[in-house]
Amino acid sequence: MSLVVVGSMAFDAIETPFGKSDKIIGGAGTYIAWCASNFTSIKQISVVGGDFPDAELTALTERKVDLEGVQIKKDEKTFFWSGRYHMDMNTRDTLDTQLNVLANFQPVVPDSYQDCEFLMLGNLAPEVQRSVIEQLQTKPKLIIMDTMNFWMEIAMDELKKTIALVDVLMVNDSEARQLSGDYSLVKAAKTIMKMGPKYLIIKKGEHGALLFHEEKVFFAPALPLEEVFDPTGAGDTFAGGFIGHLAKTKDISFENMKTAIIVGSAMASFCVEKFGTQRLREINKADIDARIAEFVQLVNFDIELV
Amino acid sequence: MSLVVVGSMAFDAIETPFGKSDKIIGGAGTYIAWCASNFTSIKQISVVGGDFPDAELTALTERKVDLEGVQIKKDEKTFFWSGRYHMDMNTRDTLDTQLNVLANFQPVVPDSYQDCEFLMLGNLAPEVQRSVIEQLQTKPKLIIMDTMNFWMEIAMDELKKTIALVDVLMVNDSEARQLSGDYSLVKAAKTIMKMGPKYLIIKKGEHGALLFHEEKVFFAPALPLEEVFDPTGAGDTFAGGFIGHLAKTKDISFENMKTAIIVGSAMASFCVEKFGTQRLREINKADIDARIAEFVQLVNFDIELV
Repeated sequence: MSLVVVGSMAFDAIETPFGKSDKIIGGAGTYIAWCASNFTSIKQISVVGGDFPDAELTALTERKVDLEGVQIKKDEKTFFWSGRYHMDMNTRDTLDTQLNVLANFQPVVPDSYQDCEFLMLGNLAPEVQRSVIEQLQTKPKLIIMDTMNFWMEIAMDELKKTIALVDVLMVNDSEARQLSGDYSLVKAAKTIMKMGPKYLIIKKGEHGALLFHEEKVFFAPALPLEEVFDPTGAGDTFAGGFIGHLAKTKDISFENMKTAIIVGSAMASFCVEKFGTQRLREINKADIDARIAEFVQLVNFDIELV
Repeated sequence: MSLVVVGSMAFDAIETPFGKSDKIIGGAGTYIAWCASNFTSIKQISVVGGDFPDAELTALTERKVDLEGVQIKKDEKTFFWSGRYHMDMNTRDTLDTQLNVLANFQPVVPDSYQDCEFLMLGNLAPEVQRSVIEQLQTKPKLIIMDTMNFWMEIAMDELKKTIALVDVLMVNDSEARQLSGDYSLVKAAKTIMKMGPKYLIIKKGEHGALLFHEEKVFFAPALPLEEVFDPTGAGDTFAGGFIGHLAKTKDISFENMKTAIIVGSAMASFCVEKFGTQRLREINKADIDARIAEFVQLVNFDIELV
């Protein structure tokens, strides 16, 4: 039984108020894989061009990321995104998007991936995400989907078709409002859960994340950081920590999802400390455990009602 | 030994995207008193005009709010504020401010208030807040100060003089940035704690609140609400719950301040459910206990590092 991750593997060029990166490795699938591989092995589905470095693929293989489902299109170029963050590090402008291999991406699920127990659909065109679900002969124990406002703007009908098939949807606060038409996040959650997902995670960046299920709600803060160096990939890394913890523990109870959200928040707090995936490549289990312990301190309180 | 509260008692007229109030009872001191009186008796310092309703004063007296320190200027008018909230309910425009009795307010601390153990300085001109500190013959066990951006704009030097004398400062996130000149709240907290306060609370509205002390930080969420009806007084109510819990328990450890922040957050979540102080007048101990239990559910998680 395995964790299958679907998501872009890309080149990014990032500008923040504090610095500028060269063309570096990025993509939702990349961040998810680098993060979740701390917790479990992964079967990756993606597409890259002939310009994607072999060393990068080797590094993932060494972390027990199976790349059989990663198509390498030798004569094409890898997806490229360039963006500039504003001072608040929460909002950004896209400077350039070159779809390249993503333009006609048709994911193929290898036979060896048919044991998929956990399916993580990183942000991609909703029909691409749905194609993976439809290729699986047995419904996974849990399907988690990330998406973004872009698809709400250009492909809302397709998006809703895919959302109807997943167990857990992840969006940020403004996307939750856009998708539901509700300003209140509590109302938005109710509206979105009627579209299919039994669980909804609303990411609020530096303000933490909310997990909704039926009438229940759980809140996890983001770690207050002295410096946010580069927020790129923080949401994907959060997703990777969340699914990584669930796949490792094989427990999809609401209680364990709460813990998984804390793990995701802890992993995201590493991601933003350096450009791209750099920080995620450096950390080990001791670092992760120490960071999770900081979260316990951050929110832990005793109360006695007398 | 007692809790002394200093703050405005006022008339407000409020517009939100969802409704409009008549001229209703408001003011930081009012909200703090209605809230903190759930936990302890209070000695109030304020000023009102001859137009302030007797019934309101009687209602506070019945809640064990001592009004000896409240000046009633029969021939003058009570402070009036009118504002309109934007759709996000976080930002607002002031439509009208009539200082009236506040213009020349010189607080007088009655002899019977000299047993002050806890001093809560609600938002007021910093020299007025300082005057109360200076009139106390024995330094209170804990001095808590709320303030706002207005004083940073017109009276920064006066403000810093008062801040230097208090133990706990409360501001919101944008005020913390303005006061410190730092964008990162973690950096801002360090800068502000160098100005005097040993503890700093940064309120983030719907995104919760942070408590800083030395190298420690604690985060309390706001309760995700289906509807925020009127945010007026939420910060004052939060302050009232915080100081109310501390005064009741007489424990000013960091651990107990964490609990006090949760109590403050719970009380603020009631405040916003109706216009003005209305909701605060309705709730009882069972309501408060149930709401605090919701906060425990909201943030409580188990994690085992294996």
